[in-house]
Amino acid sequence: MTQMESARKGIITEAMCVVAQAEQVPLETVRAAVAEGSAVIPLNHHHAHCHPVGVGRLFSTKINANLGRSPVRSNQNDELAKLAVALEAGADFVMDLSTGDDVYAIRQRMLEASTRPLGTVPVYEAISRLNDDIPLLQPQFLLEIIRAQAEQGVDFMTLHAGLLLRHIPLAMNRKMGIVSRGGSIMAEWMMANQTENPLYTHWDEVLEILAEHDVTVSLGDGMRPGCLADASDAAQFAELDVLGDLVERCRRRGVQVMVEGPGHLPFDQIQMNMEREQRVCKGAPFYVLGPVVTDIAPGYDHLVSAIGATAAATYGASLLCYVTPAEHLGLPDLNEVRQGCIAYRIAAHAADVARHHPGAQQRDDAMAEARAAFDWERQFGLALDPQHAKQRWLQTRSCVDGTHTDDHCSMCGKAFCAVRTSHRIQHLMEKQK
Amino acid sequence: MTQMESARKGIITEAMCVVAQAEQVPLETVRAAVAEGSAVIPLNHHHAHCHPVGVGRLFSTKINANLGRSPVRSNQNDELAKLAVALEAGADFVMDLSTGDDVYAIRQRMLEASTRPLGTVPVYEAISRLNDDIPLLQPQFLLEIIRAQAEQGVDFMTLHAGLLLRHIPLAMNRKMGIVSRGGSIMAEWMMANQTENPLYTHWDEVLEILAEHDVTVSLGDGMRPGCLADASDAAQFAELDVLGDLVERCRRRGVQVMVEGPGHLPFDQIQMNMEREQRVCKGAPFYVLGPVVTDIAPGYDHLVSAIGATAAATYGASLLCYVTPAEHLGLPDLNEVRQGCIAYRIAAHAADVARHHPGAQQRDDAMAEARAAFDWERQFGLALDPQHAKQRWLQTRSCVDGTHTDDHCSMCGKAFCAVRTSHRIQHLMEKQK
Repeated sequence: MTQMESARKGIITEAMCVVAQAEQVPLETVRAAVAEGSAVIPLNHHHAHCHPVGVGRLFSTKINANLGRSPVRSNQNDELAKLAVALEAGADFVMDLSTGDDVYAIRQRMLEASTRPLGTVPVYEAISRLNDDIPLLQPQFLLEIIRAQAEQGVDFMTLHAGLLLRHIPLAMNRKMGIVSRGGSIMAEWMMANQTENPLYTHWDEVLEILAEHDVTVSLGDGMRPGCLADASDAAQFAELDVLGDLVERCRRRGVQVMVEGPGHLPFDQIQMNMEREQRVCKGAPFYVLGPVVTDIAPGYDHLVSAIGATAAATYGASLLCYVTPAEHLGLPDLNEVRQGCIAYRIAAHAADVARHHPGAQQRDDAMAEARAAFDWERQFGLALDPQHAKQRWLQTRSCVDGTHTDDHCSMCGKAFCAVRTSHRIQHLMEKQK
Repeated sequence: MTQMESARKGIITEAMCVVAQAEQVPLETVRAAVAEGSAVIPLNHHHAHCHPVGVGRLFSTKINANLGRSPVRSNQNDELAKLAVALEAGADFVMDLSTGDDVYAIRQRMLEASTRPLGTVPVYEAISRLNDDIPLLQPQFLLEIIRAQAEQGVDFMTLHAGLLLRHIPLAMNRKMGIVSRGGSIMAEWMMANQTENPLYTHWDEVLEILAEHDVTVSLGDGMRPGCLADASDAAQFAELDVLGDLVERCRRRGVQVMVEGPGHLPFDQIQMNMEREQRVCKGAPFYVLGPVVTDIAPGYDHLVSAIGATAAATYGASLLCYVTPAEHLGLPDLNEVRQGCIAYRIAAHAADVARHHPGAQQRDDAMAEARAAFDWERQFGLALDPQHAKQRWLQTRSCVDGTHTDDHCSMCGKAFCAVRTSHRIQHLMEKQK
């Protein structure tokens, strides 16, 4: 049974217990949310040693790190090292987006190494096995790949099943066309064969495979905008409407489902997009990539998209797919994977504070108290990246003379330290009482 | 005459011409905005070779870089090097916040080196000259410092004139108390002497000095929250109401004025804060520091605060004071100054796009077109940090074999490049027409 099927039968699974405990949410609330589909717990029966993680507005906002080699760059060991870095930096989910030769073997090692749920985009493997000749893809071959990956233990799969033949012309006047890798593959196949999206036409068969292993569907947004100019257009929203229908079909079959979203969006369009998705997709957890809020800062897209991700998670998204500083330029290296994870943990947390998620601000408040008390070690302990914060502080401290004390920092210096001055004001006030 | 006085008399100054040209706004519109105070052009008569810059909602969002040594760290040459880096990285304004010995000489060299308007916090020099003994400050001495700095050529001054004796108890129950350096100095002086804020009581005299040299007032927010828990509290808004009155007094005297704002704010409180300031301060340009949207990421506060700054400039702020990665830990080094400037140019631009500032999205659109055309050199030319983007791309390119072409990047590789696939789809569609 899937988590959803169990939940509907009133069965509390071990995964639900773990999630309820981690999120400090009553078990019955978790069960009800999984039953109705406002929460998902992606967890394949075959993924051993995987820690269950809940996704949905009921829980804290989660982050995903995309990994995986491309044929021209990076090898299996590189990607395993990146996986370790991502997990250490706090990724809640990872995706293996490898293409090229031997993706099965890479995935096997990543599944064994990942203590967090792992996702894939099965069509990448299918096309890699066809020597990249997209029109040759046979629907049954794609289903076989999906089955093999489900049997291997993949926890969630991005399936671009909502991009239909009639949507393709809508994207052809865009500045950037179709920028989703999976979406562009499906579209080329459809155009070349003049046949409807095989995932859409075989959706019931797909769901049978996924239900058997409790693979969570992540409905791909093949029409996600690739630049600000293409945002919130007819192509994007036409696909979204189909995703809304597919959500219902998943739920009817008891398959857990989340929905993917943009992409590139001007900052002022984020709230509208999040609310529209929640409405059209009946509260299915929304899994967004960024969004990037300006196109002009290649090399800094982790920061650019953390701005959008904060707004997205404030207004409706539940899972944030990181963007690294390498975005638009190449595959991320180890440090860039780490930078992406940190940027997204910041976005997720800032959004949890902003949407008044229970307990979210406690850590901020503890940090404020540690700052007011000049308790530097406690500040580092509360920091998202303790080692980085401490190293930067030690660098400051090493520049000062032997009489230095820790009751101020070098930003203002001891005499001008506002926190010290505040303490004196407090004493003056108490004396005058 | 000040820019405001000229504007009211219908006189078009050279500075207004430069601003109108740079902003692509009609000259008469600039004049009218300066006359009513919704825009300011901080430009001291004595600051030679300074390029006029306009601040206000009518114009693109501007950024400021804080510089200046503290007694325990950094020297005069360090700060001049940082000034050069900040200007090169696109800072529209700079502030010299130096404390300790010889701040006059440092400021002189910074004024000579800065082609952009320079601001100060005069009370820092006053206290430095008193060997940091705050209660000894005499109001007339502070006025002398303000006069000397005005004569020296300082373009705008942060004056914490709105923090009054009655406000201080409101801040004493905060987690972080008063975290504004200038604000804490004024508060200690008031408490120790049991006397009202000398800037407030001598405001007319201050305005006479500033009017003579056309120094723009930047009304300091001494009560800006220093952590999320202290945001939007009674202390902050009580001071804001006084700032609103001081804005009117500045305008009556023909002195240009902008208003400073937080600080640390949860993301969901930013819009309300921006709108409240605009209302209370009658549309005076709002100059915010960040705001930081979570307290738990020391070492990454440039990113944390760029999130807040984007929202702030979308909803009402006109000038963004950068925060560097060193914030809360020490003074920034050269690279951190640069990182702060880049982060804030991203925030300013993303906000200009979001508020539909005329022409703002053109550069994004051009970037999208360059991406779709695989025109890498044009992408770098359009990038906020061309050298950084190009270096990162070359790093990718150097890893691939000799058969490599530039019509894809290594993120997806050639076969999986969605932009290439989109081109093929386009061709298929044209063939089938």
